[in-house]
Amino acid sequence: MADIPIRFGIIGCAEIARKVSRAIQLAPNATVSAVASRSFDKAANFAKANGFPPDTKIYGSYESLLDDPDIDAVYLPLPTSLHLKWAVLTAQKKKHLLTEKPVALSVAEFDQILKACEENGVQIMDGTMWVHNPRTHKMKQFLNDKEQFGQLRTVNSCFTFLADPDFLKNDIRVKPDLDALGALGDAGWYGIRSILWAADYELPKTVTAFRNPVLNEAGVLLECGASLLWADGKIATFHCSFLSNLTMNLTAIGTLGTLHLTDFIIPYQEHQASYTTSAKPGFNELVTGWVQLPSEHTVTVDLPQEACMVREFASLVANIKKNGAQPDKKWPTISRKTQLVLDAVKASMEKGFQPVEIVG
Amino acid sequence: MADIPIRFGIIGCAEIARKVSRAIQLAPNATVSAVASRSFDKAANFAKANGFPPDTKIYGSYESLLDDPDIDAVYLPLPTSLHLKWAVLTAQKKKHLLTEKPVALSVAEFDQILKACEENGVQIMDGTMWVHNPRTHKMKQFLNDKEQFGQLRTVNSCFTFLADPDFLKNDIRVKPDLDALGALGDAGWYGIRSILWAADYELPKTVTAFRNPVLNEAGVLLECGASLLWADGKIATFHCSFLSNLTMNLTAIGTLGTLHLTDFIIPYQEHQASYTTSAKPGFNELVTGWVQLPSEHTVTVDLPQEACMVREFASLVANIKKNGAQPDKKWPTISRKTQLVLDAVKASMEKGFQPVEIVG
Repeated sequence: MADIPIRFGIIGCAEIARKVSRAIQLAPNATVSAVASRSFDKAANFAKANGFPPDTKIYGSYESLLDDPDIDAVYLPLPTSLHLKWAVLTAQKKKHLLTEKPVALSVAEFDQILKACEENGVQIMDGTMWVHNPRTHKMKQFLNDKEQFGQLRTVNSCFTFLADPDFLKNDIRVKPDLDALGALGDAGWYGIRSILWAADYELPKTVTAFRNPVLNEAGVLLECGASLLWADGKIATFHCSFLSNLTMNLTAIGTLGTLHLTDFIIPYQEHQASYTTSAKPGFNELVTGWVQLPSEHTVTVDLPQEACMVREFASLVANIKKNGAQPDKKWPTISRKTQLVLDAVKASMEKGFQPVEIVG
Repeated sequence: MADIPIRFGIIGCAEIARKVSRAIQLAPNATVSAVASRSFDKAANFAKANGFPPDTKIYGSYESLLDDPDIDAVYLPLPTSLHLKWAVLTAQKKKHLLTEKPVALSVAEFDQILKACEENGVQIMDGTMWVHNPRTHKMKQFLNDKEQFGQLRTVNSCFTFLADPDFLKNDIRVKPDLDALGALGDAGWYGIRSILWAADYELPKTVTAFRNPVLNEAGVLLECGASLLWADGKIATFHCSFLSNLTMNLTAIGTLGTLHLTDFIIPYQEHQASYTTSAKPGFNELVTGWVQLPSEHTVTVDLPQEACMVREFASLVANIKKNGAQPDKKWPTISRKTQLVLDAVKASMEKGFQPVEIVG
């Protein structure tokens, strides 16, 4: 039984589902068993176009997939506003849940989903891929190295990309009834997550949104940012935008060292990923050059990061299914903290860009 | 006469004066003619230790150097609180002025210095070196390239270094009576300048300091930052600190391109300097990698950036001295804008971190 892979059903044929369904097929402990769309033909075409196994079941409704007893876990790539309904139903149908981010439109919604998962004993994990890249673990070792990195003092995270006119008009991420959090939910999620990751998931004390975020006519955020402050004096900032050139920089500065990379969410290349560290550099005598340059580290990535994510999720599910283990709490806790900060950014905007206290 | 170099007098034997006096000797159109300290012996030792020409005049007071008719220009590395007195006197003595940054403790002081320079027909330039590096001109070409970079949307600038306990106790940059602007004046000056540089020196509309800056017991800033907003929606942030590992990152993001470097103030190496650009990158079909990676550019630096600065300054002075030209207004205008933003950061802190409008 140890070799039987976790059987995934995919609910919705979003673009991102192409990448994740490939990842499910790449992960050694997972398999695509079913795909559902509101249209049977769309689901069938999706299965065919993405090379799903011939025996993949095709469903013309989400409900019918959820009723399939031969599905262990659901991957949910639907627009955020639909997450609450379908995530709760997934849990009630005793399916484990791998859901796209943002998990929900608010912490209040998140908590309803989490409650359903807990009541039904199912695992929940959000689809943030980069945290599962082996590079991320290596980088964390550096951040944890008190001799080389010291104490974290500052994080700056940035994720921007230039949405084309069609995206800005038609993409679900600019629609108030679909992904109401806009750039904050789509791109800012990563910035917030990266800051929390660097801070060992210690929540900031306050969050203050930058003034004058850009919104579209429907009031959806196209660009924004915020500063986060901790009681110990740490400060972090993030910026996210649909209106600037593709950039994904992360810099974490400690008392003794600095971690830096420019492709933290999606590595430039799939099978290797780099980052730079510097530890206690200084200047030459006349301060005309550095005496110790940052060093670049390259990590081999045998399994793409999204497949690492699926493998991690499927492993937790297998542990529940086969060993009767309890669902893991680490991943939903991380998701919830990310959502808490997202809420605080929104709240700060609503309060005229005043600081908002985070209550964990 | 075209070959006679501009004769510099150095007022004060600060550590930074070692670097700049070397630069004066390296610049083809400048020479060190005199050095003054409040102690004759200190000035004499400084001249000897730094290999000044044997005929360099040694003065035991600043006044006597300023009275020397054979000095064209003064380099002023004194603590900021002494700038007003000595800069004004330098101008009144008809000496051109290359002064360390920050130029003054406030725009009000700056304007007194500027008035004295204008009334006496002398050139003023501040000692910000990196803007004179040939790399900076190359980078500016990229920012000006509408096809590759588009419109500037965001800048993030960071300069931090870990001051040792002796610095934090004794350095002039932590003393309220010497460099009252602390980390903001010393490190933040560069961040602000880099943002203005990227924005073609267009002043922001508002400046909002980040909450909870770190101050020492005497009330001098050890760490702070701010966000800057322009009417067209551009946003920039900077962070400066004496309390974090040496880091100097600059990222400017346009609609189409991104400029990025991690040694913008002092290049890793003296004789070559690099930066990366990316223009219209994208993802592969499944969004598992980038289709166009940022490219690295390396610029050969024949003359160290501080010597380029001296050369530029001496060239302006020579044009006044030999051709009867008017003092150049570009450099003091840039200095003043930097000082204006500095003032606004302070004012925002004093106003409880509310936005402060910049009035140019």
